[in-house]
Amino acid sequence: MISEKMIDLVNNSSAIRAMFEEGRRLAGIYGAENVFDFSLGNPNVPAPAGIKTAINEILNEENSVVLHGYMSNTGYEDVREAIAQSLNGRFDTGFTSKNIIMTVGAAGGLNVILKTLLNPGDEVIVFAPFFGEYRSYVANYDGTLVVISPDTQTFQPNLTEFEEKITAKTKAVIVNSPNNPTGVVYAEETIKKLAEIMERKQEEFGIDIYLISDEPYRELVYTDVTVPYLTKYYNNTIVGYSFSKSLSLPGERIGYLVIPDAVKDYDLIFSAAGVATRVLGFVNAPSLMQKTVARCLNEKTDIAYYGRNRDTLYNALSEYGFECIKPEGAFYLFVKSPISDEKAFCEAAKKQNVLFVPGSTFACPGYVRISYCVSYETIEGSLPKFKKIAEEFGLFAQAE
Amino acid sequence: MISEKMIDLVNNSSAIRAMFEEGRRLAGIYGAENVFDFSLGNPNVPAPAGIKTAINEILNEENSVVLHGYMSNTGYEDVREAIAQSLNGRFDTGFTSKNIIMTVGAAGGLNVILKTLLNPGDEVIVFAPFFGEYRSYVANYDGTLVVISPDTQTFQPNLTEFEEKITAKTKAVIVNSPNNPTGVVYAEETIKKLAEIMERKQEEFGIDIYLISDEPYRELVYTDVTVPYLTKYYNNTIVGYSFSKSLSLPGERIGYLVIPDAVKDYDLIFSAAGVATRVLGFVNAPSLMQKTVARCLNEKTDIAYYGRNRDTLYNALSEYGFECIKPEGAFYLFVKSPISDEKAFCEAAKKQNVLFVPGSTFACPGYVRISYCVSYETIEGSLPKFKKIAEEFGLFAQAE
Repeated sequence: MISEKMIDLVNNSSAIRAMFEEGRRLAGIYGAENVFDFSLGNPNVPAPAGIKTAINEILNEENSVVLHGYMSNTGYEDVREAIAQSLNGRFDTGFTSKNIIMTVGAAGGLNVILKTLLNPGDEVIVFAPFFGEYRSYVANYDGTLVVISPDTQTFQPNLTEFEEKITAKTKAVIVNSPNNPTGVVYAEETIKKLAEIMERKQEEFGIDIYLISDEPYRELVYTDVTVPYLTKYYNNTIVGYSFSKSLSLPGERIGYLVIPDAVKDYDLIFSAAGVATRVLGFVNAPSLMQKTVARCLNEKTDIAYYGRNRDTLYNALSEYGFECIKPEGAFYLFVKSPISDEKAFCEAAKKQNVLFVPGSTFACPGYVRISYCVSYETIEGSLPKFKKIAEEFGLFAQAE
Repeated sequence: MISEKMIDLVNNSSAIRAMFEEGRRLAGIYGAENVFDFSLGNPNVPAPAGIKTAINEILNEENSVVLHGYMSNTGYEDVREAIAQSLNGRFDTGFTSKNIIMTVGAAGGLNVILKTLLNPGDEVIVFAPFFGEYRSYVANYDGTLVVISPDTQTFQPNLTEFEEKITAKTKAVIVNSPNNPTGVVYAEETIKKLAEIMERKQEEFGIDIYLISDEPYRELVYTDVTVPYLTKYYNNTIVGYSFSKSLSLPGERIGYLVIPDAVKDYDLIFSAAGVATRVLGFVNAPSLMQKTVARCLNEKTDIAYYGRNRDTLYNALSEYGFECIKPEGAFYLFVKSPISDEKAFCEAAKKQNVLFVPGSTFACPGYVRISYCVSYETIEGSLPKFKKIAEEFGLFAQAE
């Protein structure tokens, strides 16, 4: 008998990944141009041209033995220093290389920091809807996930319930803004209240509660809203970042953790996170990509491309009678299912070769996530399909 | 309080990595040319020129969105198929892409397969001396490490003790040939006996015991000895491979697992290993490097370079009175410490700016590991130091 936990995970495997594999299957049957796959957060915008230039320069300039070799488990010091200075310039922080650990994407970073922090039974609070993988990451280290129910009016965190659910066993809180799956950005006012509650509860229970800010979508914002840099609001904040979306490099697995000096037990946590990077089998973030992102910290993805997708799809779905909050960031629409069983709704859409992911994956049933990081042709081609689906569920007639 | 397990790991952190960091510190003080760092398995031979060529071609030929994007968690199908066919051509096996999972190096692959296989309390057998990280990898999934004591005459696996220590709770056996830290290659006869014992014990206990072959040093062999391909000797064999040493890419974190059809519960194990790749936070092996190694499967590292290092260092150390088996593979000498406390011996050598790693790291006290994957200049420069150390411990006088 192999790992029983893994058998459970296989049986309840990621609906997102299952839908992605299903999309590939359907594309094989009907042709890729006739399948409208909104399942995965896989950017359709190419990496900035600067990435290719940087890789070529690095291959020509750097010593191969150093470039492809081992470095400290925390990453190249020059890369970490470049990232620290870039953050300082943008957010008026005071980081150095000693606050940065290069990671195998944000997923790697979250595993490293949870391995570092959690003892069995420690509680980790998340706000529904949330990226379903958090469930596995917390379970990997025998933590207990505590889910705050969604505020489906605003999809801002429900702070009343949050305060009630903090206990003496709370070790960490994960936030994700701009949010996957809703596209909502947590306002500064919200962050201040969240920090105030956490400060108070730390004191009340005599414990440290770490705020883990998962920020792969930080750069993907469509309005003039500010995404607050959380280390400035709460001392025990650790940031997980990824270049997957900001530079369209999701397959390359490159990101970093920020562990500020102000974090309680900073020295121990930084050392332990380096060791966790090693013992979990990451060893270090991929070396060529470390050097590459360090040269591309001012590169930007084509946010206007996603913005056009967002506007076109949001306007059309609204016209067809779907209910959805207009996202300020990320590249997801979180749409209310016209029937309470949103999995049945996903299945009905799949019959039209339109693929998206049930909200229950994000602990928010009754909704579906539509990833609009696709080509504009996919958006345009899908509109008649969405209209047909709306008609099938009696929405479009109501909207007229 | 952060993770207590991690605090223990920080306090007992890898002696190899600690020595590596110490080497960097000493190089800062005395100059890199005056520090002789034999601590880490970090190849000094540059990656083959074909690596740079392949990366340039890939960047010019492939669609950026696909190249840097997500693929299946198991890796690009074309890359996996290319690896399968390469193995079939070399070892007369019958693999397809369905038997290959791309991994974040061998360390990532071992974590994926142990996560897949182990239930808490399952026993994993290793043969001392062994790569100390196995201890952490097994502990990550609450397995129990069972250590077979070393045969210090031959450093071949002690099969008598092995047979005695297999129980109904044995889930896996890890072998590593060519071996880190001894450089010994397990002969075909040894493998046949090992397989026969495992077959018999599977039947006796009515269980499946998986043989995990950790093979980062497969291509690094100096004699005409054959390194048997273990899937052909025992059905329940899973291979973990890395391009770290064979193509001098340790920082890039690229390798693969081979899970043959013949493995019991193949379908479930393959699916679960894909899911484990995702939930452990690897998500997938770095994408550009997947494509790169697929184009470089016939590239070879400069084995003659390591061979010269081996011969020069082995001959000199023997002349100075050190005791050591001449390695057939890998790039390590496993040398008997002239005093029983080999950590004290390492400290004495460090005073001469010569760094190597105590054997207790490999569950074999009384010995030290000397990594000779360094520049030839380091080898040459170290010889007077080694002679001085030998004199200090009364070896050289004896040898004369």
